[in-house]
Amino acid sequence: MTLNVQFSDTPKRWTIFEGPLNDAFKAQGLDVDLSTDHAPETVDYVVYSPKGPVQDFTPYTNCKAVMSLWAGVEKVVGNDTITQPLTRMVDDGLSEGMREWVTGHVLRHHLDTDLDVNRAPGDWTPHMPPLASERGVTILGLGELGQACAETLLPLGFPITGWSRTQKDIEGITCLSGDDGLIEALKRAEILVLLLPDTPATTNIINPETLALLPDDAVIINPGRGPLIDDDALLAALDLGKIKHATLDVFRVEPLPEDHPYWHHDRVTVTPHIAAETRPTTSARVIAENIRRGEAGEPFLYLADRDQGY
Amino acid sequence: MTLNVQFSDTPKRWTIFEGPLNDAFKAQGLDVDLSTDHAPETVDYVVYSPKGPVQDFTPYTNCKAVMSLWAGVEKVVGNDTITQPLTRMVDDGLSEGMREWVTGHVLRHHLDTDLDVNRAPGDWTPHMPPLASERGVTILGLGELGQACAETLLPLGFPITGWSRTQKDIEGITCLSGDDGLIEALKRAEILVLLLPDTPATTNIINPETLALLPDDAVIINPGRGPLIDDDALLAALDLGKIKHATLDVFRVEPLPEDHPYWHHDRVTVTPHIAAETRPTTSARVIAENIRRGEAGEPFLYLADRDQGY
Repeated sequence: MTLNVQFSDTPKRWTIFEGPLNDAFKAQGLDVDLSTDHAPETVDYVVYSPKGPVQDFTPYTNCKAVMSLWAGVEKVVGNDTITQPLTRMVDDGLSEGMREWVTGHVLRHHLDTDLDVNRAPGDWTPHMPPLASERGVTILGLGELGQACAETLLPLGFPITGWSRTQKDIEGITCLSGDDGLIEALKRAEILVLLLPDTPATTNIINPETLALLPDDAVIINPGRGPLIDDDALLAALDLGKIKHATLDVFRVEPLPEDHPYWHHDRVTVTPHIAAETRPTTSARVIAENIRRGEAGEPFLYLADRDQGY
Repeated sequence: MTLNVQFSDTPKRWTIFEGPLNDAFKAQGLDVDLSTDHAPETVDYVVYSPKGPVQDFTPYTNCKAVMSLWAGVEKVVGNDTITQPLTRMVDDGLSEGMREWVTGHVLRHHLDTDLDVNRAPGDWTPHMPPLASERGVTILGLGELGQACAETLLPLGFPITGWSRTQKDIEGITCLSGDDGLIEALKRAEILVLLLPDTPATTNIINPETLALLPDDAVIINPGRGPLIDDDALLAALDLGKIKHATLDVFRVEPLPEDHPYWHHDRVTVTPHIAAETRPTTSARVIAENIRRGEAGEPFLYLADRDQGY
């Protein structure tokens, strides 16, 4: 029996994903009709993005699961029309891309390579950074992505502190949790990496009070979620020289409007939400594996936890 | 009995090293008089740099060993006045600094972060690099430094090819040697890292013929030795667009003269010989350990191999 799979994302993403998804279905031995325009009541599974056309799932009366192409499902779990199991994307490619982006920007700030990239001809002034073993890195959020980044930064010698809502235990990393843990984690953060989900409890977690806890000349790297940062507070801390630099990949409004102060601040680097792009080949394999599981009556991988909001 | 140790480097380095060296001697239980102006015949050991005042060792008639502060001793082994054992610096701090610098610049080119550092306000154009697992990195030279870099790049997922004069065997790395091995290593080098010593056999190893073997748009990173590169050939390959970028830390003449084309080429990044600075604290420990060994009649660590020129 042919399975009807509805692809619901932007037209551009359809051109990128159609081939890899069909390849992955074939590799799993699945007989799938992948389309962007099945009749809703005939659909078995929806491959979903918050940017796609399908937002009201009421007519999808026979849909067995909704499979998000996004790692974060904060914008989805409030959709009451989704009554089916909802899976998040946990894509090796995505976490690989994230750990590369985070390690690259941590090293960029650690080594201050911007000085070299824009060095004036003839300027032979050396700069000797401390060793990585002398530079504290704190990661807020120890989910799949935070852990992947920690594991890549550790072999470089950085002392890593991680903070999460629930206490974790990861070899080689100082794991902290709770309010007191957050204070301690921030005090150690010469370089701070934000990888928390966007929930009511994490909104504006970077605010005047928490910024004041950071060491002087701390660097903030945010590949997580825009609302984690109180933007006015960060800009004030940058202007004061308390914060040396911020490299930001996510924002409350995207694309970041051209008149936003972040674009014009010489100690802010803006990147256009590229830290963790879902990679077509690897994420297609995750979708196919979950459909195979659904058809075989096995539990789905990476089910969203709606009570916790992610 | 007090040991007379002569420090022979620049005055600036004396201010940096005096404290750490005395601390390290004390930690080893050594009774040392460290100075820059002992009478030559009273000196037991010389802490040496090619930039220091002592180059003629003839008057140092009682000197038991010469301890270089530099990892490379190519400029020293030809000094026939050194008849004592000559040790190289193998400083954990130095190899840590090198692997941080190399990993940082490999990721800088892999992710193309220069695009983001100099991004125009409002430019939301994303760029998705391949995953590290899809980007071949080749390291020429698998000594302590080359191996340290390979081991830090491996966990990021890069397929690493290493080439050395004598065949090595390192887990996770494709090790090649010999002329055929060099050809294969270069063909795989989307990012090429040069960590060979400077010997007659390695001079101009990067020349028109070897540059032609690299993949189009390859990046060259040279933290090794200036003479490894035929500078005119590299500039020609950059102008042709065959080579996408070169990040160079070492040069035939240092400081690199302000009128050198490297300073003025928009696809060349010059750094002022900072990739592997000897770190005072960690390298002082190596010197002290070797003096302790000398006094105890134990073999010295890191003896230079004068026959091979390093």
